[in-house]
Amino acid sequence: MTSRESTVIRNGLVVTAADELHADVLIEGGRIAALAAHHSAAAEAFTADRTLDATGKYVIPGGVDGHTHMDFPFGGTFSSDNFETGTRAAAWGGTTTIINFAVQTKGHALREGLDKEHAKADGQCAIDYGFHMILSDVNERTLKEMDLLVEEGISSFKLFMAYPGVYYSDDGQVLRAMQRTAANGGLTMMHAENGIAIDVLVEQALAAGRSDPRHHGEVRKALLEAEATHRAIQLARVAGSPLYVVHVSAEEAVQQLATARGMDLPVFGETCPQYLYLSTDNLAEPDFGGAKYVCSTPLRPREHQAALWRALRTDDLQVVSTDHCPFCFSGQKELGRGDFSKIPNGMPGVEHRMDLLHQAVVDGHLTRRRWIDIACATPARMFGIYPKKGTLAPGADADVVLYDPHAEQVLSADTHHMNVDYSAYEGKRITGRVETVLSRGEIVIDRGAYAGRAGHGQYVPRGICQLLN
Amino acid sequence: MTSRESTVIRNGLVVTAADELHADVLIEGGRIAALAAHHSAAAEAFTADRTLDATGKYVIPGGVDGHTHMDFPFGGTFSSDNFETGTRAAAWGGTTTIINFAVQTKGHALREGLDKEHAKADGQCAIDYGFHMILSDVNERTLKEMDLLVEEGISSFKLFMAYPGVYYSDDGQVLRAMQRTAANGGLTMMHAENGIAIDVLVEQALAAGRSDPRHHGEVRKALLEAEATHRAIQLARVAGSPLYVVHVSAEEAVQQLATARGMDLPVFGETCPQYLYLSTDNLAEPDFGGAKYVCSTPLRPREHQAALWRALRTDDLQVVSTDHCPFCFSGQKELGRGDFSKIPNGMPGVEHRMDLLHQAVVDGHLTRRRWIDIACATPARMFGIYPKKGTLAPGADADVVLYDPHAEQVLSADTHHMNVDYSAYEGKRITGRVETVLSRGEIVIDRGAYAGRAGHGQYVPRGICQLLN
Amino acid sequence: MTSRESTVIRNGLVVTAADELHADVLIEGGRIAALAAHHSAAAEAFTADRTLDATGKYVIPGGVDGHTHMDFPFGGTFSSDNFETGTRAAAWGGTTTIINFAVQTKGHALREGLDKEHAKADGQCAIDYGFHMILSDVNERTLKEMDLLVEEGISSFKLFMAYPGVYYSDDGQVLRAMQRTAANGGLTMMHAENGIAIDVLVEQALAAGRSDPRHHGEVRKALLEAEATHRAIQLARVAGSPLYVVHVSAEEAVQQLATARGMDLPVFGETCPQYLYLSTDNLAEPDFGGAKYVCSTPLRPREHQAALWRALRTDDLQVVSTDHCPFCFSGQKELGRGDFSKIPNGMPGVEHRMDLLHQAVVDGHLTRRRWIDIACATPARMFGIYPKKGTLAPGADADVVLYDPHAEQVLSADTHHMNVDYSAYEGKRITGRVETVLSRGEIVIDRGAYAGRAGHGQYVPRGICQLLN
Amino acid sequence: MTSRESTVIRNGLVVTAADELHADVLIEGGRIAALAAHHSAAAEAFTADRTLDATGKYVIPGGVDGHTHMDFPFGGTFSSDNFETGTRAAAWGGTTTIINFAVQTKGHALREGLDKEHAKADGQCAIDYGFHMILSDVNERTLKEMDLLVEEGISSFKLFMAYPGVYYSDDGQVLRAMQRTAANGGLTMMHAENGIAIDVLVEQALAAGRSDPRHHGEVRKALLEAEATHRAIQLARVAGSPLYVVHVSAEEAVQQLATARGMDLPVFGETCPQYLYLSTDNLAEPDFGGAKYVCSTPLRPREHQAALWRALRTDDLQVVSTDHCPFCFSGQKELGRGDFSKIPNGMPGVEHRMDLLHQAVVDGHLTRRRWIDIACATPARMFGIYPKKGTLAPGADADVVLYDPHAEQVLSADTHHMNVDYSAYEGKRITGRVETVLSRGEIVIDRGAYAGRAGHGQYVPRGICQLLN
Repeated sequence: MTSRESTVIRNGLVVTAADELHADVLIEGGRIAALAAHHSAAAEAFTADRTLDATGKYVIPGGVDGHTHMDFPFGGTFSSDNFETGTRAAAWGGTTTIINFAVQTKGHALREGLDKEHAKADGQCAIDYGFHMILSDVNERTLKEMDLLVEEGISSFKLFMAYPGVYYSDDGQVLRAMQRTAANGGLTMMHAENGIAIDVLVEQALAAGRSDPRHHGEVRKALLEAEATHRAIQLARVAGSPLYVVHVSAEEAVQQLATARGMDLPVFGETCPQYLYLSTDNLAEPDFGGAKYVCSTPLRPREHQAALWRALRTDDLQVVSTDHCPFCFSGQKELGRGDFSKIPNGMPGVEHRMDLLHQAVVDGHLTRRRWIDIACATPARMFGIYPKKGTLAPGADADVVLYDPHAEQVLSADTHHMNVDYSAYEGKRITGRVETVLSRGEIVIDRGAYAGRAGHGQYVPRGICQLLN
Repeated sequence: MTSRESTVIRNGLVVTAADELHADVLIEGGRIAALAAHHSAAAEAFTADRTLDATGKYVIPGGVDGHTHMDFPFGGTFSSDNFETGTRAAAWGGTTTIINFAVQTKGHALREGLDKEHAKADGQCAIDYGFHMILSDVNERTLKEMDLLVEEGISSFKLFMAYPGVYYSDDGQVLRAMQRTAANGGLTMMHAENGIAIDVLVEQALAAGRSDPRHHGEVRKALLEAEATHRAIQLARVAGSPLYVVHVSAEEAVQQLATARGMDLPVFGETCPQYLYLSTDNLAEPDFGGAKYVCSTPLRPREHQAALWRALRTDDLQVVSTDHCPFCFSGQKELGRGDFSKIPNGMPGVEHRMDLLHQAVVDGHLTRRRWIDIACATPARMFGIYPKKGTLAPGADADVVLYDPHAEQVLSADTHHMNVDYSAYEGKRITGRVETVLSRGEIVIDRGAYAGRAGHGQYVPRGICQLLN
Repeated sequence: MTSRESTVIRNGLVVTAADELHADVLIEGGRIAALAAHHSAAAEAFTADRTLDATGKYVIPGGVDGHTHMDFPFGGTFSSDNFETGTRAAAWGGTTTIINFAVQTKGHALREGLDKEHAKADGQCAIDYGFHMILSDVNERTLKEMDLLVEEGISSFKLFMAYPGVYYSDDGQVLRAMQRTAANGGLTMMHAENGIAIDVLVEQALAAGRSDPRHHGEVRKALLEAEATHRAIQLARVAGSPLYVVHVSAEEAVQQLATARGMDLPVFGETCPQYLYLSTDNLAEPDFGGAKYVCSTPLRPREHQAALWRALRTDDLQVVSTDHCPFCFSGQKELGRGDFSKIPNGMPGVEHRMDLLHQAVVDGHLTRRRWIDIACATPARMFGIYPKKGTLAPGADADVVLYDPHAEQVLSADTHHMNVDYSAYEGKRITGRVETVLSRGEIVIDRGAYAGRAGHGQYVPRGICQLLN
Repeated sequence: MTSRESTVIRNGLVVTAADELHADVLIEGGRIAALAAHHSAAAEAFTADRTLDATGKYVIPGGVDGHTHMDFPFGGTFSSDNFETGTRAAAWGGTTTIINFAVQTKGHALREGLDKEHAKADGQCAIDYGFHMILSDVNERTLKEMDLLVEEGISSFKLFMAYPGVYYSDDGQVLRAMQRTAANGGLTMMHAENGIAIDVLVEQALAAGRSDPRHHGEVRKALLEAEATHRAIQLARVAGSPLYVVHVSAEEAVQQLATARGMDLPVFGETCPQYLYLSTDNLAEPDFGGAKYVCSTPLRPREHQAALWRALRTDDLQVVSTDHCPFCFSGQKELGRGDFSKIPNGMPGVEHRMDLLHQAVVDGHLTRRRWIDIACATPARMFGIYPKKGTLAPGADADVVLYDPHAEQVLSADTHHMNVDYSAYEGKRITGRVETVLSRGEIVIDRGAYAGRAGHGQYVPRGICQLLN
C-alpha cells in the first residue's frame, strides 16, 4: 500500500546522482511532488500531513540493490534470508528496492520458476522488488519464453559460464540467448568465470589435499574471470546485444570491461562491497573461518581493490550491488569442512551496501554524487525502473532516506538484521548511518526503529535497460 | 538586472543532464524556485506573474559556452563580434552564459588585461558572462597574480603550446603555471599543438609555394596535436595539476585523453561543432573559400569525426564549446590571400552550438541528456558555476530555454545574428529551434523575437573546477 | 639414404635468417662441412666430387613447412596428396622438411594413430619429415602417452577449439593437456576458433538458406577467432605452458598475440600464404568456385592482410606454414554443394610457400633474411630440429636450395606437382624460382627437373621447442 | 695494421646472434676465412700460423659499443678516458669496436668538430672505432654538412632534448634534422628528456636546499623521459625518418618504444648496463657517494629494471651500449658538492659491458644468442658496419673473443683498466671472463694479458642503418 499521507522534508541536503541541492522535498500520494529551494516562497507554501526535519542530514533516494538471492537454492541448501527477513534488513540499510533472481530449474519452464518466485515474495516484502530470471537451460522453448518475460517486466536474464552441470550454459547457448535479447530488448547478465577450467583446478586441488577455504580463492583464478569476461564481450558483439557482467572482482576483468567501453560497446559491470573491502586474507582466516567469505567470483588479493575503486570513478564499473546470498556458518557453511568445493557460495550484505559506500565517500574513494549514482540511479536505469526509482525528482516514487553523515556505527552480527549468524564485517567502524527511510511515502525506518511491515513492498515490473541510447 | 516577475513554465519536458521530467517549473526572484510533477497538487499550487506554456517543448537549462573570443586581437585585427553583438547572438541560440578569454599582453600584468576585458564587457552583454585569462608571459610576477585572480573568480588560465612569439609558453613556463594551479585550485586550459614544429612546416610550405588555405590543415598535423596533448598531460602529472585541453580535433589526440582518463587522471577535453560537422573538404573550397574555415587546431579529414562523436559518448571528451572567434571573409580573412599563415584563425559559432548538438540527438549520436550535459551542465561544473548555471534545479539561476524539438530551420548568414559576413554552415538544415529564452528569469528571446538588452548580462565570478573530487 | 658424394656450391649469395654472405659452401657426408668467403684461400682449398655454380643465385636453407596434412581424413574423405605426391611437390617448391599431423582417432591410443602415420610415410617421402600429434581425446591415458611421445621425438600436440564432436577439446581438456606439456616440454598447437559458437551460426545460416561457400567466411567470424586465441593464451598462462597458434588469419587475433608477446609470454603464431594473398573475394567466386578456398580459419576480408604482413615484420607472427590439406574440386569440394558446411576444409599449398614469400620480398613486405627466418629457421627452432634443419652452418644437414631471384613463373594447376585439380593461385605471376634442391647432400631437384625418389626422405625425431629460453 | 698471420681457433662453441655452432674458425688476412664443423674433413684441412684452443670456451664476435665519450667536454671538464686508455680498457673487456661521439661546438662547423675528433683518436686506439656526430646547432649550414658526413661514413647524428643552452635543440631543429636524415639515410640518435621542464625542477630543488646527488634522480623524472621519447617518435613520424633513442632507463619510456614498434615504425632503443644493475639506491649513497652514479638519463628506482630486461627479450630495446663517460670522483665529480647540477654527468663502463651481459645470461635474463645480438650484431647493423663487425662469418673482420663462461671475477677499481678512480660495480662478482681477444686477426688480449698497442685500431667509416629494410 502506498502512503496517503503527505510529507515534507525540510532543511536537508538533497543528494542525487546529478545534484546536491539545498531543497525541501514535498511528498504527496507516495510520490515526490515537488522540490523547492530552502526558504523560498515556493517551499514555504508546501503543506503536508507531517514534516521531517533533515537539518544536517542528507536526503537521498532509497538504494536499489540489483543483485540479491533470497531463499536461493545452492549446493543442497537455501540462502538463509527469505523475502521477509531479507527485505527488512535491506530497509534497515536504506535500500528500498531489490531485484532478486528467479531461477529456472533445468528442464522446466521459465514461467514455472517465475511463478514460484512470485509466490515466495508475495505479501512478504518490506520494500519494493523486481525479478531477474536465471536461465539454466537455453533451448528453443525457453528462448521464446524470454520474449514474454521481457514484455511483462522481467527484462534481464542471467547466464552462467561457471557451474557446469548446474547453471552452466555453453558458448552456443550464451550466443543464442544474447541474440534473443538483441531482438527483444532484454539484458544479458553474466557470471563470467571459466567454470570448465576451474573445475579441473578444483579437482586437482582436492586430489592434492588442498581442501581449505583459501583454496577456493586460488583455483578460481583472476585470469579465468578475465578470460570469461572477454569471451562474453565478444559473444555479445557477435550477437549485437548489450552485456552486464555481475560481481566483477579481478583487475584483469576490469581491464576487459574498460577496453570494451573505450570502444563504445554497450558493456556494463557491477562489483560488490566484499570485493572492495575484503580479500584473500579473509579466505585464509583460521579454523575454517575462511568459509564465511566463500563466494564466486572469489575475493581477490588486496591489490585488486585499487583497480575496482578506480573503475568506479572512471565509470568502467557502473553499479555496486550486494550479491546478497547468506548462508549461516553453523550448519550451512560447515557443509564444506574438508572440501572447500562443498561450501555454499555466497555472503550476506544487503543491509550494509549504502553504509559501506558512504564510508568510501568519507575515505575519499568516491564523491557523494557518485555514491548515489552507483547505488541508486544507475542500477535503476540499468534495470529499467528509472526515474520511478533511483532519484529524487518530481514524479518519482517517494523512496527516500534521511542519512546522517556524521553518526558512527560498528557492524556486527549482534546488531545486524539479516538472518545469518555472522557478519563479514564484524567490528568494522562506519561513519554515517541511515536515520529514516520512506518507501513510497510510507515510513519504514523511523529514526532508527523499524516501522515497516511485510507486505508493504510491491512487485515492480521493469522496462528495458535505459543506458542503451 | 534580475527579473522581479515570477514565472511558471507548464507542461514541458524538463531535460537536464541527469533527468527527463514531466514537471512544471516555478521561477521566483530570477531563480528556479521549485519543480513539481505536472498536474500534481504542488504544481497546481504554483502561482506566478506569467505562465509560459511548454506543451510539446523541451524545457532545458540555458547553454554555457565555455570558450569564446569577443573582440579578440589576432594577426593584426580583432574578431568581428564584440560583447554586445556576440552575446545577443548567443542568446538567440539558447546560450545564456559565455566564458570569454581575457588576454594578458606580453610584458604587462594580468590585471591590466583583465581590467580591459571588464571594460569591454561591462554594460554590453545580453547574457551573463565570466572570464578565463590567457597567459602570454609566465614569470614570477604573473604566477603570483594567478593566485589573486583565482580568488576573485578567474579560476582558469589558458596556455599555448602553439604561436611562438605571440602566446607561446615553453614547457618550463607551462610547468610553472601548472604547479601554481596545483596549489591555488586553478585550471590550466591548453591549446595543444606543437607550434615550434608546425612553424617549420609552415615556412617550408610557403617556401614551396603551397599558400592556399588547405595547406593550413596540412601543416598543422594531427600527430602534432596528439604530441602536444600527450606532453601537456605529462607536464600536468609532474605538476600534480588538472588539465583541460581546448578544441580537440584529432582522433590521435582523443586517444591521448582516453588513455589519461583510463588512469583516473584529472584530464579533460573539449571539442567544437566545427570539428564534428566540417572537415578538410571545407578547407579545400575554391576561390580562397577555405579561408572561412581556418582555425587552429584545424579541421581534420572527415574520418576523425567518428572518433570525436564516440569520445563524447564515452566521456573521453566532456564539453562542446564554440571557440567562437569570427572574422569577416571580406577584409579580414582576406588578409591571408597568397599566404595561408596570415589568415586570422577563428570561426563564428556561438549562435549555433545548441542547435547543432540537438541535431546530433536527432541523428542518433547523442542522447538528450548527454546533449544538455556537454553543452550546459559539464561546462558549468568545469568552470565552477554549477548549479547556479547549467541545470534546472531549485536554487539555480532561472536561465531557461524552451526548445522546440520539431521545428526546422536552415542556417545562413542571411538569418544569423552574429556580426560576420558568412556562415560556416550556410544552407545546413537543422531539426529543432530555440523558441524562448530566459536569463535569470527575464525573457531575452520571446517566441523567436529578441526581447533582451545590452547590460542585462552580469559578470559571474567563478569558483574552482567542480570535477576534481 | 644420405649422399656420400661431396659437393661445393660456388659463388652464390648465402642467405640465412641471420646473414647474407658471399661464401662458398662445402658439403660432405650429407652435411654442411664448411663455409668460406668467395675466393679466399680457404674456399680455394675446398675440393668435392661435384661443384654447383650459384652465380647470381641465392643459396638458402631448404624450407621447413611445419604444418601439412597428407592423406588426412576430413568430412568423410581424405586429402588428395599422400606422402609420396605431397613431399615430391614440396621438394619442387624448395621445401626439404615437412612436419605432418598424425591423428588420434577418438577412443583410440595416440600410439595407434602414430603407428598408422609412420606406416603411411615410411618409404614414400622425397624429403625428410617429422610428426605432430593431433589429440582428439584428452584423458588420463592420453595425457600419459604424451610424455612418451615427447621422449621419442613427437614434441608437439595439436588441440582444436573448433569442430565439436570431431576434434574439439573443451577448456578443461585444453587446460589438462597444456599442464602436461608444461611438465614434459611439449608444445601445444592450437586451432583457435570458438567452434561451439560458430556451429550455432552455421546452423542459423543454413536454416536461412545461406548455403554458398562465401557463408563459410561469414559464420566463422574474426571475433570468434580472436576470442579463442585470447582464451587459449589465458589457459596457457594458467598452465604455465607455451602456446603456438596455427593458421592465424584475423587482425583481431594478431592483436591478441601481440599483446601476449609484449608481456614476454611464450606465445607464438603462424600464418599461411593463403591469408596473405587471398581473401573473402575468392570465397565469393561464382559457380561454387568459392569452395576451392574453403579452409578454417577462413579467408578474411582483404583489409586483414596488412595486419598479417606487419605482424610478420614485428615478429608478432613468427612462422609461415602452408596448412597444406588439398581436396580436389571435382568429387571432393563438391561434397558441399548446397551446404557449405559439408565442403572439406583445406587448400593445397605445400609447393608454393617459398615462392610466395620470395614474392613478398620482391613486393617489399619482407627482407630476404626475414623470408628465410619465417620459412626455414624459426619453424626449425619452433619444432626442435635446429640447426640440423633451417639454416646453412657447419654441421647442419645439407638441405640447400639454389634459388634464382630473377626468374619468372606463373602458378597453375597445369604445371604444379601437387595431386589436386586446381590451383588457389591460378595465373599468379611470381618473380623467383627454385633451381636446384639438395636434401642431405643429395640432389632432388636438378635445375628444374625432379631427381629425387620416394624413400629418400627420412623420419626426423624432434627435440623440444628451442624458442623457450 | 691488420695481422698477416693466419689463425685457427679449434674446439670452441661459436656463438653468434643467430647460431651456436660446434665449429673451428679459420682466420686469414685479418678476416674470418671459413668455419667448419669440429673434426670435419674440412676443418682438419685448416692450416694456420697459429692455433688457439677454445675447448670449453665460447668463440664470439668482438663487442660493438655504440655509445662512448672519450675525452668528452662536459661541465667544464673532460671525461677521464682518452682514446688510448679507453679503447685499451674496451679491449680488456672484449669490445673490439667503439663508436664515439664527435661534438660540434655551437657556432662552429660539424667538420671542425669531426676533424678534432679524428686528431684525438688517430694513432691512439687499441681497437677499431667510428664516430657519431653531436649536433649542437641545427641550421641551414649544418643541415647541408650532414649530407657530406653521411657520405663519408658518419651516418648518425645525436640531438639533445635536454641541456638547454648547451646541446639542446628545439623541436623545430629536431624536425629539420630528422627531415634531413629522412633524405640522406642518416640515423637520428636522441637524448630524450624534457630538459626545459627538468631545468625548472632543478632550479626549484636547489632553491629548496635539495642539493644532494640523489636529487639528480628525483628532478629528472621518468615521466619527462617518457614524454620526450613520445615527442621524438612523433617528430620522426612527421619527418618520415628513423629514430634511435639512447640510454633508455624508464619503464614508461620503454612503453613508448614498444607502442611505436608495435606499429612497425622504424624506432629503436638502447639501454646501458647501469640501468639494468644500478638504481636510485646508489644515487642515495652517503657522503656524496651518489655522485659516482650521476648520469643522464638518471638511474631509476629498481622496479624499472624488470621492464628493461623484458624489453631486451621482446626486442622493444635492441642494443646495450655503455654511454661510457667517466669522471674521477676526486676532482671531477666533486665539482658538484653542494649542487648536484654541477656534477659532471657520466659513468665509466666500456670495460664491463660484455661481462655484465654474460652475467645476465647466467642469471636467466637473456639467452646466449641474445647476449651477442644486443652487444655485437645489432649495434653493428644499427650503425652500418655489419657483417664486417658484429658476427663471425666468412668475410667478416676477425674481431674475435674467446670467452670463458665459467671463470669468476670481481669488478673493482683496483683491477679495472679504465682511467677512473672508482668502479660503479665495486665488489660485484661476475661469472664469465674474457680470455683472449683478436682484432682483425691480431691478438690484443692474450690469455688475460694485454698484447695490443695504441695505433692498431683503425677508423671505420660506416654505411647507413641496416635495420631499415
